[in-house]
Amino acid sequence: MQVLHMNKGNGDTSYAKNSTVQSKIISVGKPIMKEAVLEMLCNNVIESMGIADLGCSSGPNSLSVISEIMDTVEAANRLLGRRLVSEFRVFLNDLYSNDFNNIFMSLPAFYDRLKEEKGLEFESCFILGAPGSFYGRLFPTNSLHFVHSSSSLHWLSQVPAGLESNALKRLNKGKLYISKSSPQSVVDAYLLQFRNDFSLFIKSRSRELVAGGRMVLSFMGRSSTDPTTENSCYQWELLAQAIMSLAREGRIEEEKLDSFNAPYYAPCAEEIKDEIQKEGSFTIDRLEAFEIDWDGGAVTDTHTPHGKLSVGRRVAKAIRAVVESMLESHFGIEPNVMDDLFIRYGDIVGTHLSKSRTKYINLVMALTKKW
Amino acid sequence: MQVLHMNKGNGDTSYAKNSTVQSKIISVGKPIMKEAVLEMLCNNVIESMGIADLGCSSGPNSLSVISEIMDTVEAANRLLGRRLVSEFRVFLNDLYSNDFNNIFMSLPAFYDRLKEEKGLEFESCFILGAPGSFYGRLFPTNSLHFVHSSSSLHWLSQVPAGLESNALKRLNKGKLYISKSSPQSVVDAYLLQFRNDFSLFIKSRSRELVAGGRMVLSFMGRSSTDPTTENSCYQWELLAQAIMSLAREGRIEEEKLDSFNAPYYAPCAEEIKDEIQKEGSFTIDRLEAFEIDWDGGAVTDTHTPHGKLSVGRRVAKAIRAVVESMLESHFGIEPNVMDDLFIRYGDIVGTHLSKSRTKYINLVMALTKKW
Repeated sequence: MQVLHMNKGNGDTSYAKNSTVQSKIISVGKPIMKEAVLEMLCNNVIESMGIADLGCSSGPNSLSVISEIMDTVEAANRLLGRRLVSEFRVFLNDLYSNDFNNIFMSLPAFYDRLKEEKGLEFESCFILGAPGSFYGRLFPTNSLHFVHSSSSLHWLSQVPAGLESNALKRLNKGKLYISKSSPQSVVDAYLLQFRNDFSLFIKSRSRELVAGGRMVLSFMGRSSTDPTTENSCYQWELLAQAIMSLAREGRIEEEKLDSFNAPYYAPCAEEIKDEIQKEGSFTIDRLEAFEIDWDGGAVTDTHTPHGKLSVGRRVAKAIRAVVESMLESHFGIEPNVMDDLFIRYGDIVGTHLSKSRTKYINLVMALTKKW
Repeated sequence: MQVLHMNKGNGDTSYAKNSTVQSKIISVGKPIMKEAVLEMLCNNVIESMGIADLGCSSGPNSLSVISEIMDTVEAANRLLGRRLVSEFRVFLNDLYSNDFNNIFMSLPAFYDRLKEEKGLEFESCFILGAPGSFYGRLFPTNSLHFVHSSSSLHWLSQVPAGLESNALKRLNKGKLYISKSSPQSVVDAYLLQFRNDFSLFIKSRSRELVAGGRMVLSFMGRSSTDPTTENSCYQWELLAQAIMSLAREGRIEEEKLDSFNAPYYAPCAEEIKDEIQKEGSFTIDRLEAFEIDWDGGAVTDTHTPHGKLSVGRRVAKAIRAVVESMLESHFGIEPNVMDDLFIRYGDIVGTHLSKSRTKYINLVMALTKKW
C-alpha cells in the first residue's frame, strides 16, 4: 500500500502520458455510469450531492469521470427544467503516495471550464482530495450519493498471505501472478485475499453511501471461472518472461522474481456476486464484461510520438507506468535495466499479439444501496 | 495566487525545514485556540465536527494544529466523562500549488499516532485536502464547526490594484512593500486590497460555519495604526536593500525591483474590527497582539546545522522559504544569485538586529458565528 502508485509527473514514462487503456475503460463504462446517475436522480431528492472517485490517480483521466457525472446531472436538469442538485461535493481518492499535487494544479482550469460550459459557480462545486486506502473507511457515515471506481479494484490491499516476499516457501517460482503452472495453493491465496479485500470495500462503502445511493465499479476481471484463463493473467506471464530473460543474463536476481507476487486479482462475475450477496446491503443492477485491447485500441497516429511506436511498445509503456513503482521497490532495478526490461517486454508482447489476439476483460458493475 | 507557495520538499531551503517562526506563532496562539474549542463544545452538541485549517502549508506545522484541536476535544471528553464528538472531518486547505503530496505522505503515521495515543479508530477521523483560495468559498454551507488559520491571512489574494508589475506608473520604486518613503497612494492601494480580501474571507466563512461555530485567526499585523511602522514592514525594507545592492552590481534588474510589490498586508486591530463589524455575523471574543522574534526566538543549538547559524542567516532562511517562489517568478533570479541574495539579506538583517530589536507583531483573534 505504501509502494503502489502510478508513475508520477508528466514525463515520457508517466502515467499521465500513458493511460490510454484506462481512458478506454472509462469510456466503455460511461453509458452504465450515466444510467446509474440518472436513475438515482429520478428516485432521490438531493440537495448536496456527494460524489467519490476511488483510485482517481493523476493525469487526464482523474477529472474526466467527475466531468462526465456533472454533465449527466446538468443534462437531467435541462430535461426536467429544474435544478436537481444545488451543490456537488466531489472527493478524489487514491493512496497516500498518489500524485495529488498534479491533480490539484489542474483544478483552476477545471473550475473555469465548469463556469464557462455549465454556468456553474465555483460555490456550487467543492473538489477535495481524500487520500487513503479504499479497503477501509474513507468518508463519514451516509455522506455519499455516488461512488465511482475505474481501473483500481483489481489492486489488492497487499500481496496475498503466504505469497509475500519474506514467505518461507517460494510457492510461485518464476511467475508474477497466477499462471497455468501455479499450484492450487497460489490460486487459493489470491482468491482469499480478494474476498477479504472486496468484502471490506463493500462494507465500508455501505456505511458511507446513503440509502438509494449508487456505485459504478469498473475493473479488470475474467470471463471464465478458471483463474488461469489467458485474458486475466497473460500480461503478467509475459512480464515474468521478460524479467527471466534479464535474470539469465545476470542483470536481475532470479531469486527476486521467485519472491515477487503482484498484489492484483482479476475476479470473475461469480466471485464478485458472492461477496455482494454476503454483505447484503446492495442490489446489483448491472454486471457487464467488455473486451479491451491491450493497447486500449489506440488508433495508430504517426503524428504523436506514441502513435509511431509498435503495439508491443505501446503496451509496454502502459504497463510500465502502472507497475514500475512496485518493481523498483522489490527488485531494486536500476533505471537502465528498467528501460531494457520494458524494451524486451514490448518485443515479447509484440510477438505474442502477432499470433494471438489476447484481450483484457473489464467488468463494469452498477449497484444500488438498498437501505 | 498561482505563484505563491512555500518552498517544497524537505531540503535545506524548504519550508518544512524552515518554519520555526510559524511554529512559534502557532504555539503562542494555542491557549486562545484551546479556549475557543472548549467554549464551543460546552455550548453545542456536535455529532460530526468539521474542522478546517486554512493555509496549512506542508511540513511539521501542517498537522500540529489539527493534533492540538483533537487533544483539546479529548481532554474535554475525559473531563466530562463522555464522548462529545464522535467523528472528525478535517479539511487541510492551501493554494493549488501547495505541496499536498508531502502532507498526505505523513498521514499514515499521523493516523497510527491517533490510534495509539487517543484510542481513536481510523473510522472516526477523516482528513481531506481542500485546495483553493480562502478568499472565496471552499466548503459547503453550514459544514464547519471550527476554522483555524495561522500565518496565512497576511497574504493578499493579489498584488494591490495599481501596483501590479504591469502597471503604467511605478508608484513604489525601490521598495517591495509599504515603506516610510512610499506615497499615500501605495498605502491606500494596500489597505483597499486588504479590505476587499478580508471581507470576502469573512463572508465566505460565515456561510460555511454553523451558528455557534468558532474561528481562531492568527496573522502578521501591527500594533500601531500607522501602516509604515517598523514592526509591520521592516523585513521587506531590508530585503529591498539586499535586492538593490545586487541590482547595483548588475546581477538583478533594478526595473524588476521597481515593478514588484508583495501581495502582503499587516493590518492593525482597528482595520480588522471594521470588516468584522461591517459583515456582521461574527462576534469578536478575543483579539490579542504578540511580539515574535524574527527568528522565532529559536534557541541557539550548536548541535543542529541551523542552530550554528547567526541570527541573520536564520531569519534569511525563514524568509527565503516563504518568498522564494514569488521572487523567482517575478525576478527570474538564477539559483546562484538567489543564494547570494539571501546571504546578503542575512548580513543586513544581522547588522540591523545588533542595533535594533525589531520584532514581528502577530495578531490572534477568536470569533464566534452569531447565527
